[in-house]
Amino acid sequence: MSGTVVVGLDVGGTSTRALAVTLDGVRLGTGRAGGGNPTSHGAAPAADELLTALRSALTDVDPTRVRAGAVGLAGAGRLRADPAGRAAFDRAWHTAGLRCPYAVHSDALVAYASGTARSTGSILVAGTGAIAAQVHDLRLDRVADGHGWLLGDAGSGFWLGQQAVRRLLAALDAGHDPGELGRRVLTELAGSAEVAARPRDTVGALVQTVTRRPPVELARLAPLVVDAAATGDPTAGTLIAEAAALLAATLRRIRPPGDVSPLVLGGGLLTGDTALAAVVRAETRRHWPDAPILPAGDGAAGAAWLAARDLPGVTDPTALHARLAATRP
Amino acid sequence: MSGTVVVGLDVGGTSTRALAVTLDGVRLGTGRAGGGNPTSHGAAPAADELLTALRSALTDVDPTRVRAGAVGLAGAGRLRADPAGRAAFDRAWHTAGLRCPYAVHSDALVAYASGTARSTGSILVAGTGAIAAQVHDLRLDRVADGHGWLLGDAGSGFWLGQQAVRRLLAALDAGHDPGELGRRVLTELAGSAEVAARPRDTVGALVQTVTRRPPVELARLAPLVVDAAATGDPTAGTLIAEAAALLAATLRRIRPPGDVSPLVLGGGLLTGDTALAAVVRAETRRHWPDAPILPAGDGAAGAAWLAARDLPGVTDPTALHARLAATRP
Repeated sequence: MSGTVVVGLDVGGTSTRALAVTLDGVRLGTGRAGGGNPTSHGAAPAADELLTALRSALTDVDPTRVRAGAVGLAGAGRLRADPAGRAAFDRAWHTAGLRCPYAVHSDALVAYASGTARSTGSILVAGTGAIAAQVHDLRLDRVADGHGWLLGDAGSGFWLGQQAVRRLLAALDAGHDPGELGRRVLTELAGSAEVAARPRDTVGALVQTVTRRPPVELARLAPLVVDAAATGDPTAGTLIAEAAALLAATLRRIRPPGDVSPLVLGGGLLTGDTALAAVVRAETRRHWPDAPILPAGDGAAGAAWLAARDLPGVTDPTALHARLAATRP
Repeated sequence: MSGTVVVGLDVGGTSTRALAVTLDGVRLGTGRAGGGNPTSHGAAPAADELLTALRSALTDVDPTRVRAGAVGLAGAGRLRADPAGRAAFDRAWHTAGLRCPYAVHSDALVAYASGTARSTGSILVAGTGAIAAQVHDLRLDRVADGHGWLLGDAGSGFWLGQQAVRRLLAALDAGHDPGELGRRVLTELAGSAEVAARPRDTVGALVQTVTRRPPVELARLAPLVVDAAATGDPTAGTLIAEAAALLAATLRRIRPPGDVSPLVLGGGLLTGDTALAAVVRAETRRHWPDAPILPAGDGAAGAAWLAARDLPGVTDPTALHARLAATRP
């Protein structure tokens, strides 16, 4: 058993990460590549990124030692229903020298598995988008949000960025001072915190700048909100509180009151030591005081654990989880 | 003077309307064509629609009798700065046989002028989008919102449609009954009010249907919200109240408390006998109890009045306004 290697991949919109790890928790290699989502990037380019990440993780590994693999992916269901996308992923897998099968899981399930070995619980993710899900027997059961920036993603990074610009435009319309957050947004979007003599000119320039880019890029402004909240900016503080309330409301759509199963918080906005993470922790502790609230860990390690736990000879998946999840990058 | 004719045009995103009218208020002809906004449709196609509407309005009019014209247009400022667009409009004007000059005004100013002859006041428009402005000496002074669906249009038809879908998705996520408004939205988007055995399948189908189309088409769902509110649907009622509050907040950014100048309410959502119009009237009356609150009239007639009022021999623009604005289609 100790020679057995598993491979986990965490495929996101902006980066793909791979991990090759032994069942003892020894990290043999890691890889990183660009966004590899076949839905948003196309099957062939996505598979190329997968291969790049895999090759890097397998540099010092004999691929015939790899016994199982798993890929976490937003829109995993769509890949399963997409023969061309699946075939491209299969080719990348085989080109990397791997002969074992691999499973494709939702990124939300992989985030959940990176935070706990318990087979039943909940996951709440806030990054560019936002999604919550109940997990039963390590499968996604009920899901809330994940509807994308136009129809959902309430409280997500996109939402924070969009609201920051909306608040700035409203302040400029009213002739108010844009405030600390407003100045940060102005600097980011217009290159300077200065407002034109006719504020409407600044408004027009901001609207043009944003609407020329893909809407989802508004999520890039989320760190400005998080940072401004940390320095006490009241607008940023209000947005953080509203985002936390929206995320808790999303979770409450699918997680019953009084549930004591673990709740894993994932995504860039909830795993770091951010103001939003702190408020969401407090908000969820208020609703589920008796549940363990855990941070998501390394998604690639979560995927590796999902791949490894059904291997013959694995008798204690919880201990295996502790070994793999302890291998933080 | 009584032989003098003026031409007014109201150019919108989905329709272009033209009116030829004498200074006595006799309507000599009207025309209607498709959307003619050069920014969204391109200069040449927009000018074609302008010409179609003009020719129809001038069918029974000797064009040499036309002494002045005015065009109301969303993004009028952009047309002034767009030589190709302006040249295409000039060609349409001349091809229609018109030799007099014409002015290009913001659609918000034209909506204002369709509702009052007073040179100072405010306009609040809610249609597909939403905008508010202060008018001084019949020129737009301060403006609020009008920032488009991604960054503004708070309380607009787009906003109502988007919120209706968001509320429906949240109900489906939670396993709740979609309610009357939800069933109307389901029927409109999915062809049936039925929810799949796995509600997530209905959610996925709805999200796909909406995201395959241009986002602005969400505004087409606004009448469903207005209708459902009229039948007492609580979700629709909440959305109408929120939209009215957002529109009033937009107006308050630029209109001082206690202002007694006229307030004109325009756009498809505020001129009809709709629930939203009633709530916005009540909301604005609460903030400005001593101001006349007036409905916008025929935009083409408003444009015609703006064109006519500076003609030599016009001594009483208010009486002229009463004659032209009385000529409802």
